[in-house]
Amino acid sequence: MDAAGKIKLVESYVAAYNAADLEAMLALFAPDASMEDPVGAEPQRGREAIAALYRLGFEMGIQLALEGPVRCTASAVAFPMCARTAKGRLYIIDVFDLSPAGKIQRMRAYWGPENQIGEMDLVIPS
Amino acid sequence: MDAAGKIKLVESYVAAYNAADLEAMLALFAPDASMEDPVGAEPQRGREAIAALYRLGFEMGIQLALEGPVRCTASAVAFPMCARTAKGRLYIIDVFDLSPAGKIQRMRAYWGPENQIGEMDLVIPS
Repeated sequence: MDAAGKIKLVESYVAAYNAADLEAMLALFAPDASMEDPVGAEPQRGREAIAALYRLGFEMGIQLALEGPVRCTASAVAFPMCARTAKGRLYIIDVFDLSPAGKIQRMRAYWGPENQIGEMDLVIPS
Repeated sequence: MDAAGKIKLVESYVAAYNAADLEAMLALFAPDASMEDPVGAEPQRGREAIAALYRLGFEMGIQLALEGPVRCTASAVAFPMCARTAKGRLYIIDVFDLSPAGKIQRMRAYWGPENQIGEMDLVIPS
């Protein structure tokens, strides 16, 4: 997967999130993917667990926006985002390790309480 | 180390880099730290190897600037930066895994050729 393909993957991720399109979102992940959101929380593994986390975000009405270029390495991408609801916003950096097939194998989201402006009502595992 | 301490660590890192202050830079790292710059390159381990990489950046006259909030998790930070020289710029995301003592244990820099604008003359390992 070249850099253009990696950037397109990230753009598809943001678009699927903002459209609350769970099927489009899950199609971006490898079947045995893991998701650690935020980093330090217990990683969630597999389609069902990952779907549950995205449903939660969709129900909160979160809209994502890229806040700078997608950084592409050989088999990973990292990108800064802002997640907004009507009540607040949260600054995040996502890192995706990619599978050889160009799917998200490992998703890690870096953020903490102090990256939250206003009231997002996010649950941050201790 | 609380979030304020983590943010201060990142600010000290940027300040040490921009002052080309190798001793101040190395003081931020654990003795057995590793550095992967960019992610996908062979990680460099230990004080001597890490010092050599920073000397290279200092000789190129690179100046770093944060491009958004430092994202703080329980034991890691991630932050977007732009690295500038007189000839070009490079968009980077750094991730530091921190030691219990609050030092940089594992440094990973996410960037690729397409994050380079102008001529930085950076060597990107294949």
